[in-house]
Amino acid sequence: MGEQRFAFPLPAEGLPTCWYNLAADLPFRPDPPLHPRTLQPLGPADLSALFPPSLIEQEVSGERFLDVPGEVLDVYRRWRPTPLFRAVRLERDLGTAARIYYKYEGVSPTGSHKPNTAVPQAYYNRRDGTRRLATETGAGQWGSALAFASSFFELECTVYMVRVSYEQKPYRRTLMRAHGAEVVASPSERTAAGRAVRAEHPECPGSLGIAISEAVEQAMTEGETCYALGSVLNHVLLHQTVIGLEAREQMRLAGERPDYIVGCFGGGSNFAGLAFPFLGLGDPKPTVVAAEPSACPSLTRGVYAYDYGDTAGLAPVVRMHTLGHRFVPPSIHAGGLRYHGAAPLVSAILDRGLIAARAVGQRDAFAAAARFTRCEGILPAPESAHAIKVALDLALEAGERGQAPCILFGLSGHGHFDLGAYETYLDGQLEDCEYSLRDGEHALAGLPAVPGG
Amino acid sequence: MGEQRFAFPLPAEGLPTCWYNLAADLPFRPDPPLHPRTLQPLGPADLSALFPPSLIEQEVSGERFLDVPGEVLDVYRRWRPTPLFRAVRLERDLGTAARIYYKYEGVSPTGSHKPNTAVPQAYYNRRDGTRRLATETGAGQWGSALAFASSFFELECTVYMVRVSYEQKPYRRTLMRAHGAEVVASPSERTAAGRAVRAEHPECPGSLGIAISEAVEQAMTEGETCYALGSVLNHVLLHQTVIGLEAREQMRLAGERPDYIVGCFGGGSNFAGLAFPFLGLGDPKPTVVAAEPSACPSLTRGVYAYDYGDTAGLAPVVRMHTLGHRFVPPSIHAGGLRYHGAAPLVSAILDRGLIAARAVGQRDAFAAAARFTRCEGILPAPESAHAIKVALDLALEAGERGQAPCILFGLSGHGHFDLGAYETYLDGQLEDCEYSLRDGEHALAGLPAVPGG
Repeated sequence: MGEQRFAFPLPAEGLPTCWYNLAADLPFRPDPPLHPRTLQPLGPADLSALFPPSLIEQEVSGERFLDVPGEVLDVYRRWRPTPLFRAVRLERDLGTAARIYYKYEGVSPTGSHKPNTAVPQAYYNRRDGTRRLATETGAGQWGSALAFASSFFELECTVYMVRVSYEQKPYRRTLMRAHGAEVVASPSERTAAGRAVRAEHPECPGSLGIAISEAVEQAMTEGETCYALGSVLNHVLLHQTVIGLEAREQMRLAGERPDYIVGCFGGGSNFAGLAFPFLGLGDPKPTVVAAEPSACPSLTRGVYAYDYGDTAGLAPVVRMHTLGHRFVPPSIHAGGLRYHGAAPLVSAILDRGLIAARAVGQRDAFAAAARFTRCEGILPAPESAHAIKVALDLALEAGERGQAPCILFGLSGHGHFDLGAYETYLDGQLEDCEYSLRDGEHALAGLPAVPGG
Repeated sequence: MGEQRFAFPLPAEGLPTCWYNLAADLPFRPDPPLHPRTLQPLGPADLSALFPPSLIEQEVSGERFLDVPGEVLDVYRRWRPTPLFRAVRLERDLGTAARIYYKYEGVSPTGSHKPNTAVPQAYYNRRDGTRRLATETGAGQWGSALAFASSFFELECTVYMVRVSYEQKPYRRTLMRAHGAEVVASPSERTAAGRAVRAEHPECPGSLGIAISEAVEQAMTEGETCYALGSVLNHVLLHQTVIGLEAREQMRLAGERPDYIVGCFGGGSNFAGLAFPFLGLGDPKPTVVAAEPSACPSLTRGVYAYDYGDTAGLAPVVRMHTLGHRFVPPSIHAGGLRYHGAAPLVSAILDRGLIAARAVGQRDAFAAAARFTRCEGILPAPESAHAIKVALDLALEAGERGQAPCILFGLSGHGHFDLGAYETYLDGQLEDCEYSLRDGEHALAGLPAVPGG
């Protein structure tokens, strides 16, 4: 080492003061969200039962850049700008001529990219008079980020945590409590949605879909309470563009233009946060690849259709790549990628061929992550491992073609809360969970019958 | 927020290129280490069974500044310079007029300050021809840091992990394995020291003292193998001074001179790393306070005497504040502070009244950490919690005197591997473990009879 630069720190003044809104640069208008009961286009007013006015305004904004408020910048400054590294040791280990870079979001207080949107969501809610936020969480990345952000803006925070995770993964639950949040095992007795499930299945282990329904119900029925979502929606993707805006400057410092951009894909916020600024502002545009789990392949095996965001059908209906809202993804360790659908904005550009997608098996993802750890000294989150695997494949495939491209991938978080999964992998016990076509077809049969859809 | 600056990032060029050696500025010569068998002064040659020549040279160096090698700087650059924050929200919550700052080392790849010395130790060992490092670890902070550093310099690494931690805390063990280390539960069948203990107590849960003996034995008996220690020794303290050197520059950026410096204290490396540059290079000098656990109070209730560094008496004998090498500290959650002794260099300046020490109970430490988490958004390591408690006390005591001092404390790591302890605290189940005078007197009766000591 030493002969090559591998760290490209952005000075404090490099923190972006605007978010980038890709919708402003698209040559088409994405299909509108629909009301879950009427299946008619949803107006901003319909969203006000769930979200504060400022966030609804961002959700439908056509502005190209939106200012980051000073109080949000103040919290961002606690860990941003985040590092961008060239993976020199990994390149050497691979024997590739490709240049591989990664943008690392694991330095945030809760270890992932989620605080990038949790902080502005808490800020705008506070400013618009919200007293409490309600949300759901699976493995806990989003719940702990929102708990952190809520404490900064003196909001109360209730997190519905999928019961099986609540019981089997107490650590994230404790982290949320330490940041001041109330954590409720879902399904719970708190909501009609939860009680209905428990009445039928007293031992129900819960699911993300049920937890969303409980949080949405609390927001709709309790005064001064709003709902917060950690991915999928336009305003969430918008907030995450700080990642890509910083990365563009850092690649410039490195004297590079990425030929490929890779991000792991669950709901789409981390992927979009890195890729959108390069896609919309880049010239020439890179090839952008979403890396999703083969156990939950909404982009590569789903349909592009209108579907519900949650299992119970309380959340807005959006047009997206979906496996069907009744699909229950297998219990892969990358809990953050276990979502049946996809961000509508990402779905729209995938449908138009502006980006590509690949599915990655769990064992391949962990093998890539283990290699990365040994070379780069950072243990990746299982979600991020999917992006690493695709980045390595792109480098090797390019080598076979005699090419040496520049590849940038997003390392969305560290894996320090996922060591149980690594233990299983290192012991040779990790299994792949594949998407079941039979279950998938069954779930796809439950799509809503949208008029003219 | 917004009206006050609270983040003082150091640009990449601010990374120190030298370590600071306090020994060069002391008006006295610390007492020499002794051979564990002969109890005669130890020469550099005696250390060569354990350490490579470069580190022995640093151990006895009288130079004021020692250059950080370029390859070590390259690894430091992956997370350094680390942040320094003003705790504006904590100050407001306390209602204090004191200005409270903290230097945060939890952004390192393994979440604590330990890589600051693990990296140069691995580098010098590699350069001097070592093939394998052997070390011990309790809770795992040091073991995971050395595993990380060893992978960067292509050294093999064997970590003897106290058996009870190995079995009850699998996460750190997995982190070490992921970074490529071999982790052995101690006492083991690998070494004579381990076999002797197991023959007598087959169910022995192990102790740090036994694990040190096993690692030292492996280094002494196996070719191309050296021992690595994560605290106590001069060269370890030296490497950690990057913390204080950066913090001095950052306090300058903040336009402040600290009146008080506080660091948590186990073996002394984190404490010394922050405090020594301010003590030796500061003008005027701040009041420096070591925060140790009341369950293991070597500085406040130990004796200043020659004692062994390990239980079995294989390690060098040094003059230090000690509770006796036979003392087994209670199982507090701050595993990194459970050491019977103290760094000789810190002990010498404490004995001469150049620094002060305070003991903190476990529950008070967690209460301070919980308050800190809510205000500052970072969940501290239980070790760091001791420094927070003392910093808060100093602020409140100064307020009672009508003073508003500037206080800087070291936040040595995050508590993401210690969430079980936080769960216990949040559930109101955490208990204090006090130092037992009877056990203490018994242990102190076992000090070696040093000629003329």
